[in-house]
Amino acid sequence: MSSIFSKIVSGEIPSYKVAEDQHHLAFLDVFPLKRGHTLVIPKTETDYLFDITSKDYLDLMAFTHRVAIAVKAAIPCKRLSMQVIGLEVPHAHIHLIPINTMSDCDFKKEKLKFSKEEFENTAREIAAYFK
Amino acid sequence: MSSIFSKIVSGEIPSYKVAEDQHHLAFLDVFPLKRGHTLVIPKTETDYLFDITSKDYLDLMAFTHRVAIAVKAAIPCKRLSMQVIGLEVPHAHIHLIPINTMSDCDFKKEKLKFSKEEFENTAREIAAYFK
Repeated sequence: MSSIFSKIVSGEIPSYKVAEDQHHLAFLDVFPLKRGHTLVIPKTETDYLFDITSKDYLDLMAFTHRVAIAVKAAIPCKRLSMQVIGLEVPHAHIHLIPINTMSDCDFKKEKLKFSKEEFENTAREIAAYFK
Repeated sequence: MSSIFSKIVSGEIPSYKVAEDQHHLAFLDVFPLKRGHTLVIPKTETDYLFDITSKDYLDLMAFTHRVAIAVKAAIPCKRLSMQVIGLEVPHAHIHLIPINTMSDCDFKKEKLKFSKEEFENTAREIAAYFK
């Protein structure tokens, strides 16, 4: 069975895309801790990040670096937190969260709510900085 | 003024080292969330991870991958969480935390306490798997 992220890759489930290349996708987390909270995934489904081959892992990290620079440029914040924490979705994914304080990346906090238009605007702002 | 991590690199402050190469160091967090909680740093002081050049960032990530495999091999756990969250130490660092549940990587939890001998044993166990 496909993971929810594979369904996002295939387009079966819509997403607010911020960046993409042949093997990777970055899109907004719809349960964000902060505006601009982005998820980066390899298109190929792999449960555990560190099981990926070294080459694929480094390609993913290089893509993540480019996305991180775009998020930081688009969203006012002190820096980005990068987190791989999930046990809930069996598809490796990296959270990039704009933070000003440590508590901004506390996953126990209530998630923010944005309208479809707000998500679309945020995605467009980040995408404009992606190189 | 040197960061506390630069003092660890220079040996001015002792650490429980688990892995090292010319440009990177991995050592146990002395305020661990779980046994085996490890910090990975570039030896050169850079405040913000994503300000590092692409090459140095990818070298750091490659080293982190090797450390993550060693920690996972040495410490029984479902997987490792990788987190870059800090605003407190002006020297980029990556947390690798063995987790079985999401709450295992909650930084608000009380930190674990281990004796010097326990830290030394854990560091030795991880180091034995580092390739």
